Amino acid sequence: MKPAVVLLSGGLDSATVLAMARSEGYRAYCLSVDYGQRSQAELDAARRIAFAQGAAEHRIVAIDLHAFGGSALTDRNILIPTGGVIEGEIPVTYVPARNTVMLSLALAWAEVLGADDIFFGANAVDYSGYPDCRPDFVRAFETMANLATKSGSEGRRLRVHAPLIELSKAHIIRRGLALGVDYSLTVSCYQADDAGRACGQCDACRLRRAGFETLMIPDPTRYRTTGQAAGG
Amino acid sequence: MKPAVVLLSGGLDSATVLAMARSEGYRAYCLSVDYGQRSQAELDAARRIAFAQGAAEHRIVAIDLHAFGGSALTDRNILIPTGGVIEGEIPVTYVPARNTVMLSLALAWAEVLGADDIFFGANAVDYSGYPDCRPDFVRAFETMANLATKSGSEGRRLRVHAPLIELSKAHIIRRGLALGVDYSLTVSCYQADDAGRACGQCDACRLRRAGFETLMIPDPTRYRTTGQAAGG
Repeated sequence: MKPAVVLLSGGLDSATVLAMARSEGYRAYCLSVDYGQRSQAELDAARRIAFAQGAAEHRIVAIDLHAFGGSALTDRNILIPTGGVIEGEIPVTYVPARNTVMLSLALAWAEVLGADDIFFGANAVDYSGYPDCRPDFVRAFETMANLATKSGSEGRRLRVHAPLIELSKAHIIRRGLALGVDYSLTVSCYQADDAGRACGQCDACRLRRAGFETLMIPDPTRYRTTGQAAGG
Repeated sequence: MKPAVVLLSGGLDSATVLAMARSEGYRAYCLSVDYGQRSQAELDAARRIAFAQGAAEHRIVAIDLHAFGGSALTDRNILIPTGGVIEGEIPVTYVPARNTVMLSLALAWAEVLGADDIFFGANAVDYSGYPDCRPDFVRAFETMANLATKSGSEGRRLRVHAPLIELSKAHIIRRGLALGVDYSLTVSCYQADDAGRACGQCDACRLRRAGFETLMIPDPTRYRTTGQAAGG
């Protein structure tokens, strides 16, 4: 089995990507980045998912993106929007250069492992406002990565797989269920509590719920209160 | 004055780059990355240099590249070479994806600051063995960065300046001295002691000393012992 580094956030998308990498026969080295996100429940979820899906290894690397501020996900002075408008402008939940930083860390580990493959759950459909979720970005990162590294300069070819990039949330869920992903282990909410229970109101909660609703499949998400769950 | 993020390691090269950025009229936001390098003396040097050169701000971001291992600069089980051969193969002091990770962090801060310029002391001449010190890599990073970020998607153009990339060590020192850089504040040694005194034997020490010798300029480097200083 070939080794691959899989970026694992603890959310629905990356849990699906891990299952896809495993189904393609990769030995999965899961990497989670503790970048000062508000919700540590995501990282707990990542641990459970990596174990449940038979990852070869799971590492959490801490980096203080909080030090730069600028996003509602790392800066407690910026409110997380719950108004339900997810179009047009780049949302305040965008973390500056987050995917670039996370892919760079995946690249570092891939190089040490001798892995030529990185899997990454970026999604351009639901998050069209995030510049670093677009296919052009992923290709440009891959080009850069091959110039950056020892393996690239030795003629091997590093690939960045972003298999969800053009899929809708409903498509992602359907794919993951077919591969046996247990979505009750995943946490998508931007402001989940310590037990991993979701608010039901932020953009991530709305997108996730809409995905299950489209498929008419029971949503295993645990919400804080029934009132909030229905509050979207 | 336009803001710029300047990657500052505490070594000779980045101290020179900071002086160049300042001489071009940039307000300098200096970023040092504590990536688990053996020598904390570098970071102390970075603090002194930022202050001496009138940086607007200096931040140190910690990230545990040590967790991945793979380099003599972060892994204490790999010996730092002192044999003096600096050609051909990629040296064991290469830190996997280090420049990619550091530029990504600079990009994150630049985005929060609204800065369109990043300065970076990569040098392709002396360190030809490091893939992420080549001009092609810097251009590819810049292309990726413009696709990755909010500013790039708003039509602004982010530039990665690597003004030393084609210069010899002697050229760099001459340029820095003309700009008033105090090289006694800088630490280049891969295994400097806590007081910032150099070993005189590693590749970084050899390259640095050769630069001063070429210019026939006194080398302000502080070595641990006279014997080691002359031992190269």
